[in-house]
Amino acid sequence: METGRKRDGAALIALDWGTSSLRGFLMDSAGTVLEQRANAHGIQNLPQPGLPGFEQAFAGLCGDWLAGNPGVPVVAGGMVGSAQGWAEAPYVACPADTGTLAGQAIAVDSAAGVRILIAPGVTYAPPDAPPDILRGEEIQIAGVLADRPDWAHQACMVLPGTHSKWVQIEDGRMTRFATYMTGELFAVLTKHSILGRLMPADADIEARADADARDAAFADGVRAAQASGPGDLSHQIFAARTLGITRRMAPELLKDFLSGLLIGHEMVSGLTRMGAALGSGRPLLLIGDGMLCRRYVQGLALLGIEPTARLENTAPKGLFQFAIAAGLIAPPAGKDTHV
Amino acid sequence: METGRKRDGAALIALDWGTSSLRGFLMDSAGTVLEQRANAHGIQNLPQPGLPGFEQAFAGLCGDWLAGNPGVPVVAGGMVGSAQGWAEAPYVACPADTGTLAGQAIAVDSAAGVRILIAPGVTYAPPDAPPDILRGEEIQIAGVLADRPDWAHQACMVLPGTHSKWVQIEDGRMTRFATYMTGELFAVLTKHSILGRLMPADADIEARADADARDAAFADGVRAAQASGPGDLSHQIFAARTLGITRRMAPELLKDFLSGLLIGHEMVSGLTRMGAALGSGRPLLLIGDGMLCRRYVQGLALLGIEPTARLENTAPKGLFQFAIAAGLIAPPAGKDTHV
Repeated sequence: METGRKRDGAALIALDWGTSSLRGFLMDSAGTVLEQRANAHGIQNLPQPGLPGFEQAFAGLCGDWLAGNPGVPVVAGGMVGSAQGWAEAPYVACPADTGTLAGQAIAVDSAAGVRILIAPGVTYAPPDAPPDILRGEEIQIAGVLADRPDWAHQACMVLPGTHSKWVQIEDGRMTRFATYMTGELFAVLTKHSILGRLMPADADIEARADADARDAAFADGVRAAQASGPGDLSHQIFAARTLGITRRMAPELLKDFLSGLLIGHEMVSGLTRMGAALGSGRPLLLIGDGMLCRRYVQGLALLGIEPTARLENTAPKGLFQFAIAAGLIAPPAGKDTHV
Repeated sequence: METGRKRDGAALIALDWGTSSLRGFLMDSAGTVLEQRANAHGIQNLPQPGLPGFEQAFAGLCGDWLAGNPGVPVVAGGMVGSAQGWAEAPYVACPADTGTLAGQAIAVDSAAGVRILIAPGVTYAPPDAPPDILRGEEIQIAGVLADRPDWAHQACMVLPGTHSKWVQIEDGRMTRFATYMTGELFAVLTKHSILGRLMPADADIEARADADARDAAFADGVRAAQASGPGDLSHQIFAARTLGITRRMAPELLKDFLSGLLIGHEMVSGLTRMGAALGSGRPLLLIGDGMLCRRYVQGLALLGIEPTARLENTAPKGLFQFAIAAGLIAPPAGKDTHV
């Protein structure tokens, strides 16, 4: 029998359920996080395969919250709503706001009788190019926009990561976006290509290279990207080998150089693609992990751009907005929660 | 005791010794291949590690040739001359011709008392970008130019592969070149990235997709590359996922689409980079494996370009030219062998 864990004021259980991790937030009616937990039971790493795995991971993370706070609504976002998730919440088309997400959310009932409302991902289909997709970032974006009607009016959001997203916001809605496989390219090139052979292990890089030299190598990569023409990437990355072989760059700096090249290419393309959203001092917002965002700040500075703000983990606030839009909880008194 | 294998007229043993394979050619004084052999004892796959591995692989492939034709000179090119090879033959700088290669070759004496002359690789150090390197291709190029003074005068050579090379030839010399990691990018993305997840195994692709549909998917990739701007690659490759997920392209065609994108990016950049070498009907030569070269012909056609010629395995002829330039054998009577 699950031991209940009652929390006064608990109004929502929110799950940020990705590929490699599961994060849970117990929130009050003002959107304040009362408790949070995380484990490694992302959808690719469940305690057992298939539906029982989702049930078990959910009960394992939230069982005491559910038992102690019966009737509290549960929402979830991220890869849990993908075709490989608990239940598929198909992509909704741009333009999309939190209301669109709530309107096309998918409910799943757990074996224990608890209903979970899962947010859909978003797709953008330009007229002249293949469609693009995202899932999980729409929740983070909802969290950013909740308190900032000025940003909701017009902004460009950059979410660095395995698959970085550049998203244009207009009138509170995501109107278009582009994915860059920057983080995954960096991972496969350093782990599986010839470029990784000259690169020491991360611990050795930490021990042997000082921060200024690493920043300079990163900047070399960004500047090379800035000088690049169409199609140049697969040529330029070979320099992460030749600079090492010809001893023009220390082996412990090659990884930062490659990182600068890849992030630089993303920025050169993303800034062009989102150009219309970036004119006349409109906000450029960086959302994500601290160290990676630091690199993006550094890269943007080399291109003459300073982000308006850096924000970390806006998913809890976004899931709260999603629950309000779905009518599961009431908006906090005195706040305009429309995005 | 090695059994000798005498061949009348044997004048040279030539080794094309790469990373994953070792190829041997017994040639006469006119450069005709009398016998050829190959095995998997590339420098990354020797029968045992280190020097004894090189000795054993060499004796295993050529022992009977050496015993039957005592005194015949031996030359080698490819990764056998790299820092991980039998003996390092350092890179020579552009501009470089076969004479430059011979002048800076490195001799190694085998345990059996046979001397092997190893060709160096070539480096190109542009004033405004990192240096580039190649090793092995210089021998193939020497083979192409041997009989064609018209091509030696002025040409652009494209050698598709794991690391494709675009090489400018002027007055019989390699004057500059650029490497593209196209083949390796394709391999790591299909094997190790999320893009490979939607792609069936090659045998299933063969069984399910017809050649016309695959050509069309390849062409879609090339055209997307043609329309790309600086930095767009890491965005565009994500379409090899989104086209599959949104069911706009059959899974068995995604690999050809990705191939077209990567080869297209290489071509867009390579044609720009080698632009000066390609004006006014100057030759564009494709050198390499049949199937891959067919894709390059198809891609170039989409960009409005028809290669002047396609050539396969010119390494034996190139090693023969290298041996002549090194004074190990006499030029065939009545031929101008200078490149």
